[in-house]
Amino acid sequence: MTFEEYFPVWKELTAAQQSRISAAVFYREVPRGTLLHNGSEDCTGVMLLRAGQLRAYILSEEGREITVYRLLERDVCLFSASCMMRSLRFDITIEAEKDSKLWVVPVDVYQQVMRESAPLANFTNELMASRLSDTMWLIEQILWKSQDKRLAAFLLEETALEGSDTLKITHEAIGNHLGTAREVITRMLRYFQSEGMVRLSRGTVEVTDRRALELLSR
Amino acid sequence: MTFEEYFPVWKELTAAQQSRISAAVFYREVPRGTLLHNGSEDCTGVMLLRAGQLRAYILSEEGREITVYRLLERDVCLFSASCMMRSLRFDITIEAEKDSKLWVVPVDVYQQVMRESAPLANFTNELMASRLSDTMWLIEQILWKSQDKRLAAFLLEETALEGSDTLKITHEAIGNHLGTAREVITRMLRYFQSEGMVRLSRGTVEVTDRRALELLSR
Repeated sequence: MTFEEYFPVWKELTAAQQSRISAAVFYREVPRGTLLHNGSEDCTGVMLLRAGQLRAYILSEEGREITVYRLLERDVCLFSASCMMRSLRFDITIEAEKDSKLWVVPVDVYQQVMRESAPLANFTNELMASRLSDTMWLIEQILWKSQDKRLAAFLLEETALEGSDTLKITHEAIGNHLGTAREVITRMLRYFQSEGMVRLSRGTVEVTDRRALELLSR
Repeated sequence: MTFEEYFPVWKELTAAQQSRISAAVFYREVPRGTLLHNGSEDCTGVMLLRAGQLRAYILSEEGREITVYRLLERDVCLFSASCMMRSLRFDITIEAEKDSKLWVVPVDVYQQVMRESAPLANFTNELMASRLSDTMWLIEQILWKSQDKRLAAFLLEETALEGSDTLKITHEAIGNHLGTAREVITRMLRYFQSEGMVRLSRGTVEVTDRRALELLSR
């Protein structure tokens, strides 16, 4: 599959616009753990994920984290190009959670084409709307959903992403996803273990009762 | 001032697009307290505020609220037209916080023009980016800023919006803005009063030491 086949509104661009983008786009393969975008200092470009998994998170001054969303195959990331829009004024960090392959369209080229192309601007709008919906959902979760429900939902989501019931993940990393202190995660996981829902060992959490986690997460 | 003078990218639309919008736009005057948009059932249209003040908030299943943003004169509200984009999938409620005057562009017309007009689509993009930034900011506030700092900042913001140091507002209403239980607000306000920062009486909060609130809110 080529970039042209992956990029959602490719066929709605003019030939001139297509060749401008084709001439500028570049391909990257990055190992797990690579920091792809670091707050507002960076403005790498619009990323289109071919394979792998990226994580976008925000960071407090004290170094606490919360995951805002994940990017999977075929997802497009705008925030790595946040300088493109003057109204995007927040610092987000994007990191490869798995070995990843991606295309990057440089900011200036994407922006030039978007300024003149209603299809590309409307596509970007839908993307933005989708991220905004994720963010609103996250606010509801943080405010109104109890921590144990969020943890149960997170464990189920992770096992689905990993394709395995055994997660190699530390309590601190889980806390960083959920915006919760490590101690709170440890306490809840121990409770889950006492209820037979998970089995804990050093550096891993094994889901042993999906059904109970599903019930809890609702 | 007419709609055409208020609407941000008016001059970048074609004559045909302008007349399509002009023929469809309508004007409304609503008293304080009017519910302008109620969750996902409604899809009123894109609203442009001429005067007054609107409040957009989300609501939990248990009826708890949190203010996501305010709309002031010249602000454009997209969420009252959320059916326009398939990726906008959250329920927001919009209410007139003051007597308000506004124009409404019906959804189908706005959407038709946006599909073909890169300037309107790019303007909508900037709007969306701006709301997304507000939402990210709110997440940081909820997660990482202590309640007393948020309350202090809220009181200062309110006095600025009202042009008065005496706010006619209940503790419950403050709680609904901040996504916090009324009891917590009452406790903090009593603490603020004991520190000489505010004076409380039935249904009002008077700011008596702005400087102290400013210091606290940082």
